[in-house]
Amino acid sequence: MKKYGFGADVGGTTCKIGLFSMDGSLIDKWEIPTDKTNGGENILKDVAKSVSDKMAEKGIAKEDVEGIGIGVPGPVTDDGVVHTCVNLGWGEKNVVEELQKITGFTVKAGNDANVAALGELVEGVGKGKKSLVILTLGTGVGGGVVINGKIIHGADGAGGEIGHMNVNSEEKTPCNCGNCGCLEQYVSATGIARMARMKVATCGSGETLLQQKSLEELTAKDVFDAAKLNDEVALEIVERVGEILGDAMARVAVVANPSVFVLGGGVSKAGDILTCPIQDD
Amino acid sequence: MKKYGFGADVGGTTCKIGLFSMDGSLIDKWEIPTDKTNGGENILKDVAKSVSDKMAEKGIAKEDVEGIGIGVPGPVTDDGVVHTCVNLGWGEKNVVEELQKITGFTVKAGNDANVAALGELVEGVGKGKKSLVILTLGTGVGGGVVINGKIIHGADGAGGEIGHMNVNSEEKTPCNCGNCGCLEQYVSATGIARMARMKVATCGSGETLLQQKSLEELTAKDVFDAAKLNDEVALEIVERVGEILGDAMARVAVVANPSVFVLGGGVSKAGDILTCPIQDD
Repeated sequence: MKKYGFGADVGGTTCKIGLFSMDGSLIDKWEIPTDKTNGGENILKDVAKSVSDKMAEKGIAKEDVEGIGIGVPGPVTDDGVVHTCVNLGWGEKNVVEELQKITGFTVKAGNDANVAALGELVEGVGKGKKSLVILTLGTGVGGGVVINGKIIHGADGAGGEIGHMNVNSEEKTPCNCGNCGCLEQYVSATGIARMARMKVATCGSGETLLQQKSLEELTAKDVFDAAKLNDEVALEIVERVGEILGDAMARVAVVANPSVFVLGGGVSKAGDILTCPIQDD
Repeated sequence: MKKYGFGADVGGTTCKIGLFSMDGSLIDKWEIPTDKTNGGENILKDVAKSVSDKMAEKGIAKEDVEGIGIGVPGPVTDDGVVHTCVNLGWGEKNVVEELQKITGFTVKAGNDANVAALGELVEGVGKGKKSLVILTLGTGVGGGVVINGKIIHGADGAGGEIGHMNVNSEEKTPCNCGNCGCLEQYVSATGIARMARMKVATCGSGETLLQQKSLEELTAKDVFDAAKLNDEVALEIVERVGEILGDAMARVAVVANPSVFVLGGGVSKAGDILTCPIQDD
């Protein structure tokens, strides 16, 4: 039996890489920058080199490695092909084939949120459960659905794309995906900052702590920080975020009825101040 | 190898029963009334007797029957237990165990819309596909989701309960389930009639063909019939039904991304006049 496996989470800014023992325990983790130049053509080579460097550092033999699992921020078909991945600059790319060719290892690829959902079910908060839905609230909103231990990839690799559920038929500003009114436009870090800018623009002078920064500089973290200080305007925005997120999760629940919902990504670090209005909804 | 199988679809008014060969072909079908007296205690006995009568009529030996599949209008757990089934008067009932005991046959039970989804995937419009979502638009709205050939039962047997997706947070009238604003309240036969009554009540005299009946007697069929005659008020209602249904289906699509959507139930007989606004949405 092999001894080790590698996991790589390729993001728009950094690739997070982990070395695991075969029982799923994390041995080491590190990050490398994501090189998006030239249509992201170096990304897989950089991951491969980083894995190879780590093996040299730890004295790991090639025959002791089971393979590499890689998550990418876009739809991935069952056989590991990405058709387009805007955040990495990729067009059509056979991730599995390419990384296998460079490394000689077995490779499995999946959408980042889908594999995060699987990870949470196998070794995370959903351990011992049959089904789980994850929403990763970061720059965008990723989603993953795992039922009976299997990822719902969907007919077009778009299973679990909950970030693009329509939640507002009145919205006129388009989402990155081209549609208007997607969940991502309201509950991602970018979306929360956008709602804050719109709200603060209508406030009188001195009405909110959020006016301590220019509108352009406002972040989701500013909103949660001000809400924790009981700033009325910030609380109103957080309430709205929780309401929209709670409604969307309820809609997912009538389709998949999962045992567990997991919120991940930077926005989820807000903690109770975010989860309370979701539960109230 | 066995030669035959029976299928029973238990509804609030009738039980539809079918005799099948083992390749899934329908040999015969018939209906018996659903006896809801005494908490529906006769329903399974009546199904068993009807199956037994059919075997006698056709000269089918017990050893040639593989078993009975039964669909019921409520949530059913993986092991065939119904916790409550309002439309049949049932409280907690182990459908599989009871029907097995009466008949001596192997029994499989499932929610009616879930098994309809499976049936459409195996022998219906989804034949050869991997995944399918069905919405049955009848007195209520049933839903079923099948992914990679398996029904999504959900952690509480509520997988695919799409009829109870919230589509209107402003609704004050409660659904049968107790929540307000469920899909079922707008796109079931009952829901369409309800919308028609509300709309017609605001119309001036002679404004719509729907005034040829009293408000209480208006049905979904009246609405579709009037819409086909280009009645403006009826067309507006149908447009709204299609819009609400299309929005809900789009929300299901970002979760499950099925290969096929199927609309069933009495309301689906309206045909193009219903499906066109859904596709436009």
